Formats: sequence, C-alpha cells, structure tokens
Amino acid sequence: MRPSSSTSERAAGLFDGVLARGGVSEMVADAAWLDAMLRVEVALASVHAKHQVISDAAADEIAAMARPELLDLGAIAAQAAQSGNPVVPLVAQLRGLVTDPHSVHLGATSQDILDTVMMLIASRALGVILDDLAAAIGAAAGLAEAHRDSPIIGRTLLQQAVPTTFGLKAAGWLVALAEARDRVETVRHERLAVQLGGAAGTLAPLGDAGPAVVADLATYLGLAAPVLPWHTDRVRVADLAGALGTACGVIAKIARDVALLAQNEVAEVADGSPGGSSAMAHKKNPVAAICAAGCAAAAPGLVADLLAAMAHEHERAAGAWHAEWRPLRELIVATGSAASWLRACLERLTVDTDRMRANLAASGIDSPGPDACGALVDRALREVSHG
Amino acid sequence: MRPSSSTSERAAGLFDGVLARGGVSEMVADAAWLDAMLRVEVALASVHAKHQVISDAAADEIAAMARPELLDLGAIAAQAAQSGNPVVPLVAQLRGLVTDPHSVHLGATSQDILDTVMMLIASRALGVILDDLAAAIGAAAGLAEAHRDSPIIGRTLLQQAVPTTFGLKAAGWLVALAEARDRVETVRHERLAVQLGGAAGTLAPLGDAGPAVVADLATYLGLAAPVLPWHTDRVRVADLAGALGTACGVIAKIARDVALLAQNEVAEVADGSPGGSSAMAHKKNPVAAICAAGCAAAAPGLVADLLAAMAHEHERAAGAWHAEWRPLRELIVATGSAASWLRACLERLTVDTDRMRANLAASGIDSPGPDACGALVDRALREVSHG
Amino acid sequence: MRPSSSTSERAAGLFDGVLARGGVSEMVADAAWLDAMLRVEVALASVHAKHQVISDAAADEIAAMARPELLDLGAIAAQAAQSGNPVVPLVAQLRGLVTDPHSVHLGATSQDILDTVMMLIASRALGVILDDLAAAIGAAAGLAEAHRDSPIIGRTLLQQAVPTTFGLKAAGWLVALAEARDRVETVRHERLAVQLGGAAGTLAPLGDAGPAVVADLATYLGLAAPVLPWHTDRVRVADLAGALGTACGVIAKIARDVALLAQNEVAEVADGSPGGSSAMAHKKNPVAAICAAGCAAAAPGLVADLLAAMAHEHERAAGAWHAEWRPLRELIVATGSAASWLRACLERLTVDTDRMRANLAASGIDSPGPDACGALVDRALREVSHG
Amino acid sequence: MRPSSSTSERAAGLFDGVLARGGVSEMVADAAWLDAMLRVEVALASVHAKHQVISDAAADEIAAMARPELLDLGAIAAQAAQSGNPVVPLVAQLRGLVTDPHSVHLGATSQDILDTVMMLIASRALGVILDDLAAAIGAAAGLAEAHRDSPIIGRTLLQQAVPTTFGLKAAGWLVALAEARDRVETVRHERLAVQLGGAAGTLAPLGDAGPAVVADLATYLGLAAPVLPWHTDRVRVADLAGALGTACGVIAKIARDVALLAQNEVAEVADGSPGGSSAMAHKKNPVAAICAAGCAAAAPGLVADLLAAMAHEHERAAGAWHAEWRPLRELIVATGSAASWLRACLERLTVDTDRMRANLAASGIDSPGPDACGALVDRALREVSHG
Repeated sequence: MRPSSSTSERAAGLFDGVLARGGVSEMVADAAWLDAMLRVEVALASVHAKHQVISDAAADEIAAMARPELLDLGAIAAQAAQSGNPVVPLVAQLRGLVTDPHSVHLGATSQDILDTVMMLIASRALGVILDDLAAAIGAAAGLAEAHRDSPIIGRTLLQQAVPTTFGLKAAGWLVALAEARDRVETVRHERLAVQLGGAAGTLAPLGDAGPAVVADLATYLGLAAPVLPWHTDRVRVADLAGALGTACGVIAKIARDVALLAQNEVAEVADGSPGGSSAMAHKKNPVAAICAAGCAAAAPGLVADLLAAMAHEHERAAGAWHAEWRPLRELIVATGSAASWLRACLERLTVDTDRMRANLAASGIDSPGPDACGALVDRALREVSHG
Repeated sequence: MRPSSSTSERAAGLFDGVLARGGVSEMVADAAWLDAMLRVEVALASVHAKHQVISDAAADEIAAMARPELLDLGAIAAQAAQSGNPVVPLVAQLRGLVTDPHSVHLGATSQDILDTVMMLIASRALGVILDDLAAAIGAAAGLAEAHRDSPIIGRTLLQQAVPTTFGLKAAGWLVALAEARDRVETVRHERLAVQLGGAAGTLAPLGDAGPAVVADLATYLGLAAPVLPWHTDRVRVADLAGALGTACGVIAKIARDVALLAQNEVAEVADGSPGGSSAMAHKKNPVAAICAAGCAAAAPGLVADLLAAMAHEHERAAGAWHAEWRPLRELIVATGSAASWLRACLERLTVDTDRMRANLAASGIDSPGPDACGALVDRALREVSHG
Repeated sequence: MRPSSSTSERAAGLFDGVLARGGVSEMVADAAWLDAMLRVEVALASVHAKHQVISDAAADEIAAMARPELLDLGAIAAQAAQSGNPVVPLVAQLRGLVTDPHSVHLGATSQDILDTVMMLIASRALGVILDDLAAAIGAAAGLAEAHRDSPIIGRTLLQQAVPTTFGLKAAGWLVALAEARDRVETVRHERLAVQLGGAAGTLAPLGDAGPAVVADLATYLGLAAPVLPWHTDRVRVADLAGALGTACGVIAKIARDVALLAQNEVAEVADGSPGGSSAMAHKKNPVAAICAAGCAAAAPGLVADLLAAMAHEHERAAGAWHAEWRPLRELIVATGSAASWLRACLERLTVDTDRMRANLAASGIDSPGPDACGALVDRALREVSHG
Repeated sequence: MRPSSSTSERAAGLFDGVLARGGVSEMVADAAWLDAMLRVEVALASVHAKHQVISDAAADEIAAMARPELLDLGAIAAQAAQSGNPVVPLVAQLRGLVTDPHSVHLGATSQDILDTVMMLIASRALGVILDDLAAAIGAAAGLAEAHRDSPIIGRTLLQQAVPTTFGLKAAGWLVALAEARDRVETVRHERLAVQLGGAAGTLAPLGDAGPAVVADLATYLGLAAPVLPWHTDRVRVADLAGALGTACGVIAKIARDVALLAQNEVAEVADGSPGGSSAMAHKKNPVAAICAAGCAAAAPGLVADLLAAMAHEHERAAGAWHAEWRPLRELIVATGSAASWLRACLERLTVDTDRMRANLAASGIDSPGPDACGALVDRALREVSHG
C-alpha cells in the first residue's frame, strides 16, 4: 500500500504550502544547487581563459557541456557519499564530457565550489526575501498612515495599560521590519563573497595570478571579493544567519501581535482571507499570522547550529563545514516563508477601529489620549524607507 | 539553462548521501506522511465501526478508498496552505470518495491526525535508528574485546597524559552508545502515543466512548494510549527530541575521537574505505567519521527549537504546533544519518596497535601501565547489552 | 561614583528575585560548589581508608581540615585560571593542611571531583525543583477538581472553538507537569552518578580495588555507580538537561495560558497577588505567570549548549567540559525559578467562572456542551500522582 | 558545615577565573546595573530640567541623591520580585530621598530604564571586548608577519593535505578576527540606542517635546537616538547578540586550531605559560586555548535564546523581555572572557618552525611549495586594520 514512486514525487512538498511559502524554496532546491555548481565551474573556466591559464576553446567547451541534462544526476547524488560532497562526482562527470579534463575545476577544491554556490544561492534567495519584506514594509506603512490617529488601548504584559494608536503600533512594525531589511540588504551586498583557495586555501596552483583570478571570478558572479580565501573563516555564514534570524524575530513579533489582536475577545483586526478548520466550520483562523509565526520559530535553533559550526579546523573542517549545508538551507526557507506569510498577513489585514474604540472605552482607563502618537508615526514614515 | 522539472526530481537528494544516509530519510518523506495520514483515518474508521459509531460497510469503504493513488496529492499540498495544514484537504478528498462523507474523520481534528502520524513515523524511524545504533554498539564491543589489552596513550585536553588501552576507549564508546540506545528505546516504547481529542481535546463528539476509542485506536496503531489528549502537552515531543539529541551527542564524541586518532601525525586508526578529494589524490579522508559529526551537529539547534515550541496556547497552538513539523523531521533524519555513518565508521575501522605502541613509547611517559583497564572492559562487556 | 565593594556585595542578586526565585539558586552558588568539592574529597578519603589505601587517621584528618573557613578561597578562585579549574588550587591548599599530603585526592583527577560535585549539586537542586513541581501539580489538581464542570470556551489558534471545561484545562496542566516531574525524578534517581577514573579514566592508581572504591564512593555520596567512568560520556549531563528543558517547556505552556486568560478582554483568571507598574497604578500584572515564562525561556538555548558540548575529546575534553559548568548551573536556576513562580501562580490563581460562562455565551457557539470533560478530569486525577 | 555568609561572599567567582576572565565581568555585575540605573534617572532629570519640565533644583537634587550608598539595595532586590523588575523599588526609594517625588522617573517606565541601562552596559563592555580583540588581532598580525614564509603542512578534514605557511594560517585568524571586530564596533557605534517611551511607548507624557527629550537623553548618555521607542522592537538586541556570537565563533576556530597544533604528536605551537594538572605533573595543557574554546561555546545557545525572545507582545512583552536579561549578560561575559583568553593565547604563543618543517617533510607530500602564501599574507596585513 506504499505510494508509487511517481506519487511520491508528486507529493513532494506536502508541508511546503505552509512551511515553504513564496519563491525562496525553489531557489535552494537541489536543482538550483546543481545549476549554481555548474555556473561556478563555467565562471572559473572563463576567468582562467581570460588569464590564459586555459584556452578560450576549452572554456567555451566547458560552458557548452555544463548542462544538467548532460549529467547523470542520480550518480552524482549517489557518489557524493563517497567523498563527502557532490562536487567530486560532478567534476568527474564534467571532465568526461570535455576534450581537456584538466581544464575543468582548475585550481579549485570542492569547498571552493560549494561555498561560492552557497553565496550565489543566498544572493538570489535574499533578493526574494527582500521583495517580501519590502511589501510587508509597504503594508505596515500603509496601516500606520491610515490609522495615524486611530486610538487603541496599549497593552503591556498582556494587560491593558494606557492608550496609544493603531498607527503607532503599525509604525513600530514598520521600523522593526525596516531595520531587519536593512541588515539583510547589507549582508547581501557586502558580505556574500566568492570563495577560491584551492586545496589548502593558498591559491597556490594559480601562482601570482591568484588574487586577480579571485577578483575576476567575483565580478563574473556578482559577488564580493574577499581579502583572503574564507574557507575556514565563517563570519560570512554567521552574518547571513544573524540577518535572517533577526528578520524572523521581527516577523514573529508582528505575527504574535496580529494573532493576539485577532482573538475573538479582542477582535480589533482580522485576517482578510482566513482559513477554516477540519472540525469547526465557524472558525476564522488567522492562518497567515500563525504560519508566519510557525515558520519564524525555526530560526533560533538554526542560527545556533550555524554559530556552533564556526570552529572549522585548520584548512578545512572535519564535519563543521558539512554541518552548515542543511541549517543554512532551512534557515533561508524558513525566513522566506515567514516573510511571504507576513506580507500576505499585513496586505490583507482588516482593521476594526470601532472595536478598538469600544475596547478602549470598556477599559475604563481615562489617561490623556495619545496625542503624541501622530508625530511619532509621521517621523517613522519620514525617516524609514518604505516606498 | 534551468534544469527541467524531471531533472529536478531526479536530482532530489543531492546532499542526501551525506546528510540523509541510511533508511530513515524515506520514512519521514512526504509519501510516508501521506501514507500514515491515510492509515490513521482508516484506523479511526475501523475503531468507530467496532464501537458502532459508523457501519462496518462505511469503515470498509474508507479502508478501500484511502489509497494515495486515488487522491490528488498536488491539490492537497496546494490547499494545505489555506487551512494551515494538509489534513483539511485530504479529508475533503477522502470524503468525496465514499458514500457517507460523515463517516470519515469522525470526532477528529487535523491535529489529532498529524500528531498521531508524527508518532507513527517516529516509531518506524526509531526502529531503523535503533538498528544502526545496535550495529554500532556491536562494533564498539568488538573493538573493546579485540583490543582489551592494546596500550595507547591517554589524552586529556588534547595532550598526552597517561596510558590507557584502546579497548577501554572503545568500551567507553560502547557504554555511551548503549545509554543513548536505551533512552531511544524507552521513548519509543513508552512515550509514542496516539492523539485523539477532537476540536478542543475534549473527546466530546464521542460521548462516553471517548477513552475506549482512544485505547482501541492506540492498540490498532501500536502506540501507547495517553491519560489525556496531549494536543497541547508536548512532553512526548520533547522526550523524543531529547533522546535523539543525546544520541547525536554520543555519536559526535566518537566521531571526533576517530577523526583525531586518524590524523596522520597520530595514525592510530583509519577509516576502512576512506574518501578522496577533488584536489588531492593522496588524501585518505575519514569520511564516515566526518559525515557522522556533520550530521550530528544539527541536533542541538533542532532540539532547542522543539523545546522552545512547547508553549502551545490553550487548546491548539497559534504557530508552535506548525513549528514542530520541520525540526522534528530534520532531527530524525540527522540522527538516522549520523547513526548510519557511525555504524559504517566503526564497522570498518582499522586499528594500528603498532602505531599506538610507538606513540606511547615516544611520549616518554613512564607511568605504570593500564593494568586496570582490562577489568573495566570486561565489566562494560558484561553489563551492557551489545549482542 | 562607583559603588563601594561592600555595596556591590549587598547588591548581589539584583535580578534574583525575578530570575532566581526559590531555593535552588543558593544550591548552585559558589559556596555550595566549594562545600561539595570538600565533601567529595572527604568521601574519597573515607573510602580509601576503608580499603586501607590510606590510614583512618589520615582520612579523619582530611575530614577535619576540609572546611571552607580554613581555606583561602580568594586564592583558589584566582589560581583556578592557571590550571583551568578550581580543583587544582583547592587540593593544593588541602594538602597543605594535613600531615600526609599524598592521602588527599588520591587516585582522582580534577574532573572526577567536579563531575561528582555537579551531580551532588544537581541532586539537591532537583529535590527543591521536585518540591515546587509537586506543589504546582497539587495546585493544578485542585483546580481540575474544583472546576471539573466549569464550562469555558476552548480556543484553538487563539480563536474561540468549541466548549471545554476549565477543569479539563487544568487537568491538562496537571498531566503535563506530572510527566515532566516523573522524568526529573527518574533522572535524579537513576542517572546522577559518581565519577571517579583518575588521570585518564582508567582507575589505574587504585589497581584491582577501582570498581569497589567507585561503588563505595557512590554509596557514601548517595549517587549511582556507573558501569565505567563517564568523564567523556556526557549522556548523564544530557539526560539532566533534557529533563530540565522539558520541565521548562511545560511551565512555559501553563504560564502562557494563564497570561492569556488574564488578559482584561478575557479576564477568566487573575493572579492572586498581582504586581504593579512603575508608570501605571491601575495595572494588575500577572507577575508570577510572566516571570515563570521569562525564566523558562532560558532553557532551549542552554540545553542546546549542553548537547553541543557532548563531543568530549579522548580522555578529557579540550574545552567542552569547561563549557558545561555555566549552562548547567544556569539551567538549574532557570528551571528552579520557573517552577517556583509557577507554583505561586497556580496556588494563588483566582478563577472567574461567571466570566467564563459569559465569554462562552458571547461566543455564540452552540456546540453540544463538554459533557465528556468530567470523565477525562476524573481519569487524570485518578491516574496521575498528585498528592 | 555550610560556609558562613562572609565566606560565601569571598568565594564569589569560583569559576570566574576560567569563565569570566578579563574586565567585562565587573561591567555587567549588579553594581554596574544599579550604577547605570541611577545614571539614567539622573540623565532623564537633567534633560527634563533643560526642557523646563522640572526645575534645575529638582534635577540637581536627584543627581545628588542618586547614589547607591543612599539606597537599601537589599530591599530593592527583594522587592524586585513583586513588580517583576528592580526599577519599581529603586524609583520608590529615590523618590523618597528628594523633595519632589514627581520629578523622578518622569515620563518613563521600568523598561525604558532597563533597556537604556542594557545599552549603556553593553557599550562599556563592548569597549573592553574590542580592546581584547584588538590585542588578539595585533598578535595574529605579528604571527602572520613573523611567519610569512614558514612552511607548514595544510590540513583538511584533519588529514595532511598540501603545504601552506603558518603566516597564512595566522593571517586567516587575523582576517576573521578583524571581521568580527568590525561588526562589534559597528553595533556598538550605530545600534546601541537610548530607550524612552513611557507606559506604552507613546512618549505621551512629554507632549510635543518627546522626540527632543529622547535626542537629548541620547546625547547625554552617548547612545544613539532611535526613530521610535524600541521597547518591543528587539532588533538592537539581536544585532548585539549576533555580533557577540560571531566573535565567539571566530575565537572558537582559532582556539581549536591552537589546541590541535599543540597536540604532542603535532607540537607545532605551544602555549607560553601552560597550566598543570592535579594528577599529572608533566602535562603542559594549552589552558588559554582550551578556556577560550570553553567560554566561546556558550554563545550559540545564548544567541538562540535572545532571538527566540524577540516576539514581544504588544507594547511590553509578557515574559520575553525578562527572558533577555540573563542571556545577554551571560553572552557578554562569555565573549569577553573568550576574547581575553584568546588574546593571552596568541600573545604568548610559541611557534616551533623546525617541527613544522619536520612534520611537512615527514608527510611525504611533494606538492609545489606555498609560494603564493606570502603575497596573501601581505595582502591581509595591508587591507586589515591591525595596528
């Protein structure tokens, strides 16, 4: 009664609608890794040709042959276990397709390829995450502006405190999202770098040309050029992890606020297209907020794993490098999915200002009204890029 | 130049040879989840029929129709996003296939199905992990016995200290593995329980029959019966996480020892079928130890995420439940893969007692020899189940 | 304007009222560690005397001299840095106080003392934590019994779902707390073991008497005797961490429920002696629930750190052992404080059944009432030890 | 036989020599928190006086009375539990000392004070950490320069690979440390901000003057001024955590390298003032590297806890805020201690180039020498600030 293999393939992604929403998942899929691995080998050959280390013809042939459909991907996956990574069998196959096998992967080691691929993939995925964050920021700005003067009871320690406005609440979301966005953007532009060092990170096989080759490879691939090969300096991975973990933390805060405001007893906001229940037809679950929270919750542990994996031994780690692949992938997916859910949540949020006013009145709190809030909202809208 | 969709499917698992070794990966795949979801619905119908809540014919029809090939799995995956989980669309489709839709999923809520599925999947996966741990334990016992009296320099803080034996070192691995195994086994037999509670965990729709239905469902599925529905009591998940995290910690310790002993400058053990390098043909990398370490390193963060997700609000969590799915799956895969690698590592480990003796002699340490070690090895072999 | 040193001492514990509530904090303080270190050295001497390794007079002298007031504790703390742990200077001072220096610390290494101390301290601290858990369990049982039939709207995904009873809610807390308690108890009784192995864990200096000495030491100190020295097998530490982390997860769940139920808009429970605010006199903050949640939140990361520290190299770790001290201490304090707060929270919880009924009526949900809940409450009270 | 209370106080810091080395520990001690709390209240009063919200005399009186020795610190600590934080009792006492109680803490809430204090303390502590990182960077640069051309076998996956130089290895440490340093510096200068918002973060009590008061307070205290109050936007805390966690990761890498190079079988470096053992007089433990590794290992879990605590509810968190205090403090101490140990480790590292050459020769690897390394070392020394 086991499902057939074709069924199994179609079923791939059973939880992806919830946990891998948005465009990021595809960008970290195996196909994307393979694609990027080939792209790096092609780039390397092209740069080698420019530096006359290999011929233009050899580089052109590599570019022509570096196509997934010419490779036996099943064999690559299977043989990856023998060497501990998929680059060794991929390079072997690619070498089998070209006239001069030595022109392939010249001066590089497996980690050079995978580290650079990781950065390429992160760069593209962060682009998508930034799009979703930008949309969420736009939505938060819209809410802040529209509700600049909508009074709401402020709540501290989950108790009614003193009045504020929903606009200021949304402006708080806006500022936090913008800070997270800024950090993701900085990491994307400044910290994602090409890695090339050869067997022990010395660039030895490239002689004096080493740094120039690295610089050209970086330009070719649209990545930064590092001061030194960073094969055992994982600050870039940590920077990436930290930026994504922070974004998830901000998303979790906003999702929590929305879920709390959407409680029936509070009912100040509602999810615009809520989800049902398999047991209760009347339920209006704030699915977007809840899924955003569920996805974002993956971040702390994944960041911890990536930080704990920074102690790469000598010139290549005895396990810590392998330990990065899965958590980084998962962290990118979790952040992308959380950002996509939050965007949906904020874009379709409906706000019940009457209920806010009623709850405020019922609180019996007669503090002076939140006159100062409008100015703060204006300040946030003015100082934070949200267009 | 993007790979075709069929290529993409074939490429699934690019890193699985390294990070998802052994039999566990398949057991937590989407197909296994779907299979188990259907199995739980069938079990529920069967138990309902026994209790005359639905007719035998209705239960039989559900059993006949609950086949993956009759479902539109793509639609299930796609619609999962709307309700926040895949049970809602699955139940809708299954209801469409039978004469009496109300006989399907009766008295259950989505979480009942998914929680029970999680336990079923864990039960099967832990069986495989226990097999690999048992084999690793057997290998460690073999090494302890064979090298009961093989002297080796003991090393503390990575400095040569006083003599011990390789047999006692292996006996230490044996005892640690056995402790981890015992805990995994206990959790598997005592803590994996069926979940059934209905919409708010009250078993309300089943009237007085509730507890009996739960007990029968547990028997049917080979799981424990809980005192109460545990939909928001996640101790079972934490127990599972703790047991797997502990096993990974033990594996990491042994893998680290092997990698250190295999250093060229030490050279006291070697991996029996070492892996090569894409840049250095002479390398004899201890791939199994390194991959075991790499896989095991995933555990701490995943356990942290699962513990952090224990605060399920009221009668169903607003995100924390969704937050369990991915880390639990990843943790099972990581542990299974690490156990499989460690088994391979220990089963094919070659031991160089001459080199051990030479290193010991070169240490210049003339402490009295490790006469006490043999008795400790015997004790470990005697008291720890390893057969 | 820096505070004087005496001021500084008086100020010790500025956050302890919140983060180190209850009796546990004192039990993991430096004084308790020192006390236990001396106790282990005395026990070791006593056992050596029994085995005629040292004279009874020597053992008696050690017992007489092993008093904190005879030691220069400042010097111990200062010199700890030189050897990397405080046992080396403590042993040196103790040797200086007795006639036969060699009779002190015989056959032991620093880690033997500190590991055994860690277990002794954990044993005492877990006793206090178990007391607080037992009281919280009693309070939960009391609430379950008193409110066996008090209807309340069940809430899923923070939305009103179908009716349940507050008694069943409390019974759910009861069962979860009892499961956590059972695990802590099991770990305390079965897994806290004496550690004695000598320089490389071989028990070499004790000759054939090794295992008997270990057994006697265990009996003397009220700890379990391990199969082998466990200096680099950290399953016991992981078991301890897992049990405490799980308890914190359960506490976090209950604290979250209470804080949510105490929201003004819900108002179904209140903290019996709520705390005020520095800015808002009208506030009735559910301080106990909030502090319980705040303390419990420390656990996931601390457990992760302890699991990540399991890879102890060879016969003594190069850092991973040192890495356990602080997180284990913090985890014990966090769990103890969280348990103490939760006990206070549940013991003084006031329940507003009128409000529960009103909220249920206002929900407009006309599902059949939670008749099944009473039987489940009875079952929980019957099957779970809570007396 | 319990130690007397005065003994207990003297014993404070039993593990601090190992786990709280350097100047940071004192800066996060309770006395420092109290000191900073008073400093913030004084600053607030001073700014209020400037804005004519209170009189200059009132501000002067507050400044005169805000001295730890005038407060009953024991009472503050004890009463902190009632309100959930120590600001409430501190403000009450301070108000009792001045003519106009209302002039104290005006417009502020407890979290305003503690958040600002956290930033002040972090700012000072990061200064010390930066000093130690700078010294470690200087030492790494010195090693890179001195050993620019000292050949050493490169090691990948803990196996001998191809030659590199010790200078390039040290240059790799240099670059990683500099990257970590740069991030800590950026966070210190750009992200540590004053917090002032009042009861619900609206700045309501200050009317139109709010933003100006915040700006002046920031200037007074040497912190950044935020766009909005950040009481529930914890990106700043996450930034701080990420920077410290990253620094610990870099330190862990270097410490691991040193401990591995110091193995007797490798013996290419040694700790200049190694520590002994309580059981083995001949041991030369690389205590500094090991303690650096032990301290740094605390970071991943603490960062995870801080990221997980970002979901602050509404206008003040119901537990997540309290959950930050301890891990942030521990993380600062761990990083400071790790940095201090690493500085000591690198400053007194002795390098055995003969042994490096001998190990390289013994490897039998006849790859072309690492001619390219010198240029890379030069590049690192040129491009990275290390003076």
